[in-house]
Amino acid sequence: MTVLDEYHQKRAQLIADDRALRVDATNEAHFSGKARQADAILRRIREEEAKSIWAVEHDEVPHPFPGMEFLTGKDIILKTQLFNIITKMPKGALLHVHLDLTVNGTTLLALALQHPSIHIRASARITAASIKSVDIEFRPLPPSFVPQRISLCLPTYKPGEWIPLRRAREQFDAALGGMQGFDRWIANCLTMNPSDAYVTHNNNIRIWDRFRAAATLTSNLVYFLPVWRAYIRQFLEETIIDGVSYVEARINFSPKFMIGPNGEQNVPHKEWLGTFQDVLAEFRGSLRAQGRDDEFTGAKIIYTIIRNCEPEELEWYLNDCIEMKKLFPDIIAGFDLVGDENILRPIKDYLPQLLSFSTLQASQGLPEHHQIPFIFHAGETLGDGSVADDNLYDALLLGTKRIGHGFSLVKHPKLMAMCRERGVALEVCPISNEILRLTASMPMHPLPILINHGVPVALSSDDPSLFQNMGLSFDFFQVLAASNVTGLLTLGHIARDSIKYSMLTAEEKARATLKWEERWERFVDEIVRFDGVRRN
Amino acid sequence: MTVLDEYHQKRAQLIADDRALRVDATNEAHFSGKARQADAILRRIREEEAKSIWAVEHDEVPHPFPGMEFLTGKDIILKTQLFNIITKMPKGALLHVHLDLTVNGTTLLALALQHPSIHIRASARITAASIKSVDIEFRPLPPSFVPQRISLCLPTYKPGEWIPLRRAREQFDAALGGMQGFDRWIANCLTMNPSDAYVTHNNNIRIWDRFRAAATLTSNLVYFLPVWRAYIRQFLEETIIDGVSYVEARINFSPKFMIGPNGEQNVPHKEWLGTFQDVLAEFRGSLRAQGRDDEFTGAKIIYTIIRNCEPEELEWYLNDCIEMKKLFPDIIAGFDLVGDENILRPIKDYLPQLLSFSTLQASQGLPEHHQIPFIFHAGETLGDGSVADDNLYDALLLGTKRIGHGFSLVKHPKLMAMCRERGVALEVCPISNEILRLTASMPMHPLPILINHGVPVALSSDDPSLFQNMGLSFDFFQVLAASNVTGLLTLGHIARDSIKYSMLTAEEKARATLKWEERWERFVDEIVRFDGVRRN
Repeated sequence: MTVLDEYHQKRAQLIADDRALRVDATNEAHFSGKARQADAILRRIREEEAKSIWAVEHDEVPHPFPGMEFLTGKDIILKTQLFNIITKMPKGALLHVHLDLTVNGTTLLALALQHPSIHIRASARITAASIKSVDIEFRPLPPSFVPQRISLCLPTYKPGEWIPLRRAREQFDAALGGMQGFDRWIANCLTMNPSDAYVTHNNNIRIWDRFRAAATLTSNLVYFLPVWRAYIRQFLEETIIDGVSYVEARINFSPKFMIGPNGEQNVPHKEWLGTFQDVLAEFRGSLRAQGRDDEFTGAKIIYTIIRNCEPEELEWYLNDCIEMKKLFPDIIAGFDLVGDENILRPIKDYLPQLLSFSTLQASQGLPEHHQIPFIFHAGETLGDGSVADDNLYDALLLGTKRIGHGFSLVKHPKLMAMCRERGVALEVCPISNEILRLTASMPMHPLPILINHGVPVALSSDDPSLFQNMGLSFDFFQVLAASNVTGLLTLGHIARDSIKYSMLTAEEKARATLKWEERWERFVDEIVRFDGVRRN
Repeated sequence: MTVLDEYHQKRAQLIADDRALRVDATNEAHFSGKARQADAILRRIREEEAKSIWAVEHDEVPHPFPGMEFLTGKDIILKTQLFNIITKMPKGALLHVHLDLTVNGTTLLALALQHPSIHIRASARITAASIKSVDIEFRPLPPSFVPQRISLCLPTYKPGEWIPLRRAREQFDAALGGMQGFDRWIANCLTMNPSDAYVTHNNNIRIWDRFRAAATLTSNLVYFLPVWRAYIRQFLEETIIDGVSYVEARINFSPKFMIGPNGEQNVPHKEWLGTFQDVLAEFRGSLRAQGRDDEFTGAKIIYTIIRNCEPEELEWYLNDCIEMKKLFPDIIAGFDLVGDENILRPIKDYLPQLLSFSTLQASQGLPEHHQIPFIFHAGETLGDGSVADDNLYDALLLGTKRIGHGFSLVKHPKLMAMCRERGVALEVCPISNEILRLTASMPMHPLPILINHGVPVALSSDDPSLFQNMGLSFDFFQVLAASNVTGLLTLGHIARDSIKYSMLTAEEKARATLKWEERWERFVDEIVRFDGVRRN
């Protein structure tokens, strides 16, 4: 053997050793030869499109690159064959999504317009000059409310006056685009725009202002029982179509009541969940009627509250969560604290309450197998040793089953080892992280660090109504496009494992995994067949 | 012990375990109590200034934050007490700097103006409309050259015509600012500007165009023997003033000749190094005359060529490097390949040549203790499994003594362990990485990942003339400002270790470390004393 041959042998071995902890190395045996062929086909397409699509100029996107800023690159992504194929992939479980931030603004507005009780108000009359900066609010009002005016745009409009939403739309100034202009404007207020993320609010501190504004406005409409019902159905429909077969969605239970059909804020948490349960049953029924049972395993809820309440107040929520678990044992899957970790309270502010949660559950008569696990958000930050970064220590010490985000985990060798050894998966949200400016683009994202260190991950969408990444295809695509190591097999392992890291029972997991594997085989088979046709 | 006490004990232990590989944990014993006091003082100042300086608005910097984009934040950095203190810190060794890109544009222009033989030309007449986009070039010309015109700005100027530099300056259009306008324009062309890095060329692919343009223009002036001599002296002066006591600078030897005083391109490598040796001796002499011997241990050169030559051509350079080592055994410290790894040749293209370098040295009669080590640039990339990322495998397999950048090393668990075990330090260049858009700001930089995983690092400035970060204070500051874990002690360990990772002999290292420790004690002593005065 020559010196060069020997070198190449050592080199190949070193690369293999370096990648030995990757999910696609440790579980290699799971997949068929067909899957490996499909993987090779996607690598070829990725390479071709890196040249034919990402290396050429596009209108208004001067220098695109694979994994670029999502809100700028989305239209280009939609043109790729790679994305088209990924939309057909079975994705497994969606484990990190905030239910009240899922359905896009245009659809949400359409849902809202079905209800005459919904009103809108603005901090100023809407004109070409004010439309970009004005604050707006929605609210369903009781039938007794009599509006004084019907347009936001006339000089007579008094700031803060409630106008019926439908009339505000019908009377929207023609100079501002009339009804279409109104729809565009509202949809815009309900989402994150490229100019917010990449220009005016381009850092992780500033961007949260835009996030909060859009999220608050969305909650004005979603936390209204009639919209709530339709919203959940819409979310399930759109998610399942993208190949997701199981969901653990977070609901923010911080408001103790949502608004009912009569315009009064008096609908308690059990009705929120009752509605969820009903919609779920209807949705299942309609899938069954279409012979699509195997596309859907189910959906559960992680009970979350915003991490700004007083520690004493948390006790009320923990008791409420237990109460909900008793009423909906198959739906409540975990407990979590949410919101900007950089400015709100750290987990450790709530230690006395959280440490006694398990005893509290037992004392309230919850059986052992119905114990509510913690599934904490932690480390969604650029901080190094900041309180937000330190949340990772508490999440793991408190026995979190998964970590929401864990963006800063890569700085913590001991915690990475704990996640690897305990099988604590990180719910990684690539597009969310990028739009919230934790990373400037996908090639800068720490995901490859986690994968190569064998830390389990589940890819997630977080807040698709704000980020325009409904389903999981966009996040899967960004991950695939930005790497030369990660391929279809890697995504396959991650999707398959998402079921393993869910809160389903062992038996449910086995069944869901089996269904996933059947769909996966059909999927890779189709890739190989289609490629054969294309090349002949 | 209560449950809460027990928890806090476990928490403290977990944090300690997580940080056990850090340089400031493993070598804790090195530093005095005084140093720990100084560390606490700097932490307090950092916290105060995070509020008093970084959380308020500044002219033209709407939302500053600690560790923000350097070219935008530099003026704010200069106002901080933290920076002021860091400028006085003994920095140890500067291990990654490209000698021909060190002295700022204004000073370089002043050096160039001393030589009537230096000419300038432009791709178009300079007007208010063309000044931002025109290409320019400098060249020393032989005395026989007779210029046809003396202004770049008159309508008679023909694109490409050489004009004497001094005359071009004197005749610069008053409407463009006259001589001052000329100086500003040239300085601007010789550096990276915030609008390049953060607006027009804001990604790691595009920014290299601006890098190459500014670097090429600089080399027009620096690779002229009379400027070369003055430039080296200027570099040494400015570096030592910042507290750096030893330098291993890279020189790009790709051009086989530089231009001599007579305007002919005929000065061979041995004269470049001979000049370096002479300047070094003069500089030492002048320090000694001022009683400042202990500020300076010395300077060596890493022989580099650009990684675009043919593999066969590399043989010439390797032989030349050996030749230079024989002539300047105390100056040549290593061999390296440089340039944009994403588009130029990977290390593995040169394997046959590089694998036989050691044999070649023996056959040419270099004694064992004069073997020239590899000190490779590798992994200066956002790629994941790209050829640039893969350079890390080859750098380590070929036995590199340190790694230039290694930005993508954090993705490689096995290679991180090798660096840790073999003591292969990464020459980390925080400001360079940020301006070249590998990271959007310091809080996104992977440095804390490296530190927490126990990978040795040496902080470096890379190309201070382009990045405006002369010395090491700016890079040290950015690292300190962007973390809550890293403190003065961490920087102290990194500075002290930079000597250990240098190519000095064991004896030289011991002497340099001792000198560093004396200066360090004076430095921390001063911090503590000054703080006592300030607070009384």
